[in-house]
Amino acid sequence: MRHLMSPLDFSVEELDKLMDLAGDIEAHPEKYAHACAGKKLATLFYEPSTRTRLSHEAAMMNLGGNVLGFSSAASSSATKGESVADTIRMVSCYADICAIRHPKEGAPMVAAQHSSIPVINAGDGGHQHPTQTLTDLLTIRSLKGRLNNLKIGLCGDLKFGRTVHSLINALVRYENIEFVLISPEELRLPGYVRKDVLDKKNIPYTEVERLEDALPDLDILYMTRVQKERFFNEEDYVRMKDFYILDKGKMELAPKDMLVLHPLPRVNEISVEVDDDPRAVYFKQVQYGVYIRMALILTLLDIHVD
Amino acid sequence: MRHLMSPLDFSVEELDKLMDLAGDIEAHPEKYAHACAGKKLATLFYEPSTRTRLSHEAAMMNLGGNVLGFSSAASSSATKGESVADTIRMVSCYADICAIRHPKEGAPMVAAQHSSIPVINAGDGGHQHPTQTLTDLLTIRSLKGRLNNLKIGLCGDLKFGRTVHSLINALVRYENIEFVLISPEELRLPGYVRKDVLDKKNIPYTEVERLEDALPDLDILYMTRVQKERFFNEEDYVRMKDFYILDKGKMELAPKDMLVLHPLPRVNEISVEVDDDPRAVYFKQVQYGVYIRMALILTLLDIHVD
Amino acid sequence: MRHLMSPLDFSVEELDKLMDLAGDIEAHPEKYAHACAGKKLATLFYEPSTRTRLSHEAAMMNLGGNVLGFSSAASSSATKGESVADTIRMVSCYADICAIRHPKEGAPMVAAQHSSIPVINAGDGGHQHPTQTLTDLLTIRSLKGRLNNLKIGLCGDLKFGRTVHSLINALVRYENIEFVLISPEELRLPGYVRKDVLDKKNIPYTEVERLEDALPDLDILYMTRVQKERFFNEEDYVRMKDFYILDKGKMELAPKDMLVLHPLPRVNEISVEVDDDPRAVYFKQVQYGVYIRMALILTLLDIHVD
Repeated sequence: MRHLMSPLDFSVEELDKLMDLAGDIEAHPEKYAHACAGKKLATLFYEPSTRTRLSHEAAMMNLGGNVLGFSSAASSSATKGESVADTIRMVSCYADICAIRHPKEGAPMVAAQHSSIPVINAGDGGHQHPTQTLTDLLTIRSLKGRLNNLKIGLCGDLKFGRTVHSLINALVRYENIEFVLISPEELRLPGYVRKDVLDKKNIPYTEVERLEDALPDLDILYMTRVQKERFFNEEDYVRMKDFYILDKGKMELAPKDMLVLHPLPRVNEISVEVDDDPRAVYFKQVQYGVYIRMALILTLLDIHVD
Repeated sequence: MRHLMSPLDFSVEELDKLMDLAGDIEAHPEKYAHACAGKKLATLFYEPSTRTRLSHEAAMMNLGGNVLGFSSAASSSATKGESVADTIRMVSCYADICAIRHPKEGAPMVAAQHSSIPVINAGDGGHQHPTQTLTDLLTIRSLKGRLNNLKIGLCGDLKFGRTVHSLINALVRYENIEFVLISPEELRLPGYVRKDVLDKKNIPYTEVERLEDALPDLDILYMTRVQKERFFNEEDYVRMKDFYILDKGKMELAPKDMLVLHPLPRVNEISVEVDDDPRAVYFKQVQYGVYIRMALILTLLDIHVD
Repeated sequence: MRHLMSPLDFSVEELDKLMDLAGDIEAHPEKYAHACAGKKLATLFYEPSTRTRLSHEAAMMNLGGNVLGFSSAASSSATKGESVADTIRMVSCYADICAIRHPKEGAPMVAAQHSSIPVINAGDGGHQHPTQTLTDLLTIRSLKGRLNNLKIGLCGDLKFGRTVHSLINALVRYENIEFVLISPEELRLPGYVRKDVLDKKNIPYTEVERLEDALPDLDILYMTRVQKERFFNEEDYVRMKDFYILDKGKMELAPKDMLVLHPLPRVNEISVEVDDDPRAVYFKQVQYGVYIRMALILTLLDIHVD
């Protein structure tokens, strides 16, 4: 039995197969409409996350399966002091596969150790959110046609941004990848990613403070939010906040075939006027999130459709 | 693609077709049991409303479809500052149709503008609640056999009662309709309905303060709740509260074929002793609410069953 | 139409049939996979209980049916002042069967009186929790092969433990049953069970304060939690708390074929080191909980599968 704890759980070859499957699902959804008939997905969300929960649920339903679970700790038995280990043993009697979201890092790993059904880590604190990374990879591969030979701009809060760290770890396994790290000084990519991942693997990268300086030369722009609270002082925030807001003006500086991704939800870091730009693919990304989760559920359940 | 924002979105002819379909569903439910197989309804409830949510969910399940969503803002990503526009674009990737309930007036309209799937307004603040009005119309048509030639008593809080205003707007499109407006002075039907709708269309109406005075002559009695807080002073409340409580005694004054409707939930404005009276149809109304929503889902999805 | 309000609603013969059906479901789940196609279960949980709710939902889904409802009072219309009687009349229009959990004793009985669909009491305050008792009985019968000729140890809070009282009431209907009541003085089985049930029916029992004294001689050990707050003084709690924690050492005193049951969730009254002991069947119990609820749903809906 197999779980998904980290985006690196799958080898590059396995990821290729997973994304091929997702591509086939996109092309022939009807082939898969009953693949999980009689199967149940449990969504165990100890903190609310509508997007991630509904994406898993839609994926299971698209496969003809059923869904049960809870959407916040308040409506779970966690309030009665039950351990995650006990909860998953219980849920193993109710479902065939489960997706777990938990505020504590490592909770899904504990679940996996005690589970008799496949466990998907649907986000554990600031630690991992592997299905988001798989979504990002599928979006890039589907719309760009490749995962190698890419210059990727990562913009915003690179210090705390879990999705950014995961994406870097996932992309450095492909050839000829280059990063442009776009953030304020306070929110630079931390040393344990810059040195231990990029430097160690000799991945080229540059660091810039202004999005405008990076835009002309990117294949992919991955946007994340810069929260005001992250800045050390008000002055810096006021000086820099517009650097990290993508608008129509900035989009004019970007290549015609650059793609803009965002893990969502966005607040104001991408102006709504950008939404109609064909390069803005963050809502397509949501759709790819469903396809990759369908492929993931099939793979973890070892279900094959001819 | 079509949405349902207001009960007036459908012409009288379209409503007739919708109610004919609901009637066929009532008569032959098995014909429709798989009409929405493989389709998903998203219920996006930014404020709780068990009745309305479950009615939509039951409707979709009766059609063989699936349901996903959230039942309160607390378990949604609204808490992360996501706009309704972004949420609906996300949900468009997860579902084929959605029902949205929101405390802010106009929120479903914003959703509809950014949606790529049909949107049903399941109530937006004090503004509209069109599926309730469709339910009321279907109940009257099914049990009374007609939507014209009716004398309708509207009782209770006519000032703030959203369902009352919608029902008036819907009924004045039929011939030979007459209203009796039964309320305390403080809770009279507001001028923008009385003058702009009733007077402008020359719809006859009378205003009375006591339910007993209106009862002997009605075809339909539509009850709503009178909240104590609405009264200007305690004295008025004490003097009048019994005027608006329907009990067995008052029912004796009513015609043998008068129907009592109520949008529910009721608190004490209809005594439980009335429940067994065959003229009390407010629980049948709940059932008609499921049929009309089944018809609505089929119509908005443009699904036809032979 | 039939409801389940108390574990004694079914005669011993009816229980035998119910458990036979559960056994057939366990052996041939595929036979029952579509038995409830097109049917809906409503889960009306006025207080959260993940285990009980998900067990009912899994049961209905295993039968090919659908599920709708609410998981806490906050997301229900109870907050609008609707009575349980009115809610169940509404839900009768939405579903074919319902499971209700309510903090107030007797609420499911009120629901049953006004319902036009079968109602399952899924726990009402400290009163009844019949599906737990049915689960306990099925677990014992399936794994022990019998419900008579048993010496059953009941350990922990025997004063307030609802599941313990129900289990006693259910087991005294079988032949040659003997109980060992293991609890601190403060948490002894109350007189209305000891005298009115055990003494009246001449059921042999002994009372002991230490689990170790009872273990060597039991067929079944039914564990429950002892909450610190229940003790009159800190001193007693400190002196006795370890008496009621089942660990590997204590398990060595027990017969090789003794079974350990627990209604769950457990906190620390069973050490996790016991989980791998083949005699620890509290997680199997969860699975039997699904089978018995499947059998119950079929029975209350009067659905027969050949």
